[in-house]
Amino acid sequence: MDPRIREHAKTIATHSTSIEAGDTVVVQLPPAAEDLAVALHEICGDRGAQPVFLSYSQRADRAYKRAADSFEEPAHRRALYEETDVFVIARGGANVTEGADVAPETNAAYNRAMEAVKRERLSKRWCLTQYPTPGHAQLAGMSTEAYEDFVWDAVSIDWEAQGAFQAQLVERLDDAEEVRIRSGDETDLTMSIAGNTAENDTGEANLPGGEVFTAPVRESVSGVVHFDLPLYRYGREIDGVRLRFEDGRVVSHAADRNEELLTGILETDEGARYLGELGIGMNRAIDRFTYNMLFDEKMGDTVHMAVGSAYPETVGETNAVNESAEHVDMIVDMSEDSVIEVDGEVVQRDGTFVFEDGFEAA
Amino acid sequence: MDPRIREHAKTIATHSTSIEAGDTVVVQLPPAAEDLAVALHEICGDRGAQPVFLSYSQRADRAYKRAADSFEEPAHRRALYEETDVFVIARGGANVTEGADVAPETNAAYNRAMEAVKRERLSKRWCLTQYPTPGHAQLAGMSTEAYEDFVWDAVSIDWEAQGAFQAQLVERLDDAEEVRIRSGDETDLTMSIAGNTAENDTGEANLPGGEVFTAPVRESVSGVVHFDLPLYRYGREIDGVRLRFEDGRVVSHAADRNEELLTGILETDEGARYLGELGIGMNRAIDRFTYNMLFDEKMGDTVHMAVGSAYPETVGETNAVNESAEHVDMIVDMSEDSVIEVDGEVVQRDGTFVFEDGFEAA
Repeated sequence: MDPRIREHAKTIATHSTSIEAGDTVVVQLPPAAEDLAVALHEICGDRGAQPVFLSYSQRADRAYKRAADSFEEPAHRRALYEETDVFVIARGGANVTEGADVAPETNAAYNRAMEAVKRERLSKRWCLTQYPTPGHAQLAGMSTEAYEDFVWDAVSIDWEAQGAFQAQLVERLDDAEEVRIRSGDETDLTMSIAGNTAENDTGEANLPGGEVFTAPVRESVSGVVHFDLPLYRYGREIDGVRLRFEDGRVVSHAADRNEELLTGILETDEGARYLGELGIGMNRAIDRFTYNMLFDEKMGDTVHMAVGSAYPETVGETNAVNESAEHVDMIVDMSEDSVIEVDGEVVQRDGTFVFEDGFEAA
Repeated sequence: MDPRIREHAKTIATHSTSIEAGDTVVVQLPPAAEDLAVALHEICGDRGAQPVFLSYSQRADRAYKRAADSFEEPAHRRALYEETDVFVIARGGANVTEGADVAPETNAAYNRAMEAVKRERLSKRWCLTQYPTPGHAQLAGMSTEAYEDFVWDAVSIDWEAQGAFQAQLVERLDDAEEVRIRSGDETDLTMSIAGNTAENDTGEANLPGGEVFTAPVRESVSGVVHFDLPLYRYGREIDGVRLRFEDGRVVSHAADRNEELLTGILETDEGARYLGELGIGMNRAIDRFTYNMLFDEKMGDTVHMAVGSAYPETVGETNAVNESAEHVDMIVDMSEDSVIEVDGEVVQRDGTFVFEDGFEAA
């Protein structure tokens, strides 16, 4: 096996999730990622942790969702999750469009049924990462070998140094009241983050990490945003998303491609019409778009926002946590004609932070 | 996908396990069997059952077992199993000798730790079946395509007719006291089955099925047996096993090949030194040895016995259920110079049953 797979497993188990003796671990990987499963099982054995190996098959998921009339929370999955300390999940399907023929309302109904067990998982230590497969390489327009290099390089950077770099932004957001994001002609969005917490993501719950993220105050979001980078969701590309917010709520939406899928997402539940996350990418080691949110949203000149559920750890005690069965990240390219303002002060212009070389004050 | 895979899934879900609305189902399959997983997930969705997809990776199992110093029952696996109604498990590793470098005492320790959760699984509806892989075809000395034919033919026979054929033997065993098995110069074994129940296996818990099985009265087994067909266990071939029983207990043992693995099995616990099962193969559709116990033990001119745990449903109320973390089946070829006697009456000679054409009374 490629030695970088054992390195990847070690980063997951040590840096991201701190697997130790007595931990019950769920490893959920696609069939192609058996090597990574082997490496993670080795570590579990070595440390006295106990693994259960779930398969992450988008083909099986598609088959189940298409065949079912309705969905309920599965009692056995809940029981498993309740007794699990650590979840390690890797994406890496053979075909990233495997879910392309599942109806949006089916995905919405499925997610509603699974919302509580998902919340259970998110309350534990967890790590979402990527296994490099030909399907994902193809999505990125890369050879499989170059994509392997890309993934394994991205997960193995110096996370301590990355954290120190990001702390500079965390500091500016910590006691801030208002964030305004402007980009081109079509994005001008204002939101309050007063009382909420900015988290410094250095490759724990997401590997790679490399963002600073928080939650907008639910009803405070106002303005328009054009997400000019595409996203893949449920096996389809959604492109050119435009949202208008009033009092925090999406009051109109459009997309250049697969708009009905976007509509389905927004109609999942009331919380899906509110922003649950504002994230600012800061990982300069990710130097190209690969049409994979796990990587793209970490890039240094992007901002992403998610409609749907907020991470409870980002929401202050006096603010409401937005709850939803959905959490869909979308990206704004901030590399040109763009600024991020915090309490009226520019903290990023055209992708360069105020604390980086090359920042232009005006 | 090969249409026989959907047929196989349907047989599992309908005939073997009766999956229906509201059932919680665990599907545990090797990475190579994703097609079968897809077909089973379709059925779960269609019937309103809820699947959890476990991966059955012998590579991951090996890595975990070799790395661990000791084993404990995993709380999350127990919780999952307790809330599961139906288990579907298929074998089909890429390499049947994947476990060849796991120490016998490691397997024994692992099995002891897992004994209670295994018993939990066996108390539910379950089906163990086979997915045809190149590794298993190689073990059988067959091309992959011919092996696929062999497997999918074997699982799709007329199980009702098979059950009627087998019922003739069940009837003879039901009120019987003693079974004696003689074969060649080295097998002459006597046991009581008084009070125990003969089960008619027609492809439920094992698919393919095709045997009649019961439990010997624990302390009654006496004599010698030479298992002249090899078995694969923990990734190794054990060949030429000879056991001597006194008062039900194995008092001496030998094997031509991998005897230390046999020793490890017998030393798992006290119950591993007693017979838990006597099975008589009756499936004429399985017409060749493939060195796979799931098939071989069902063949029409074989008898198999398992050291280790008894199936509770085969043990009468007044008899003790042999308990063990092990259950290892071994086969005697009964096709030549062999007889099965029940209460002194010959019910099979040289592989032919008394109720079949060609039976010779003496």
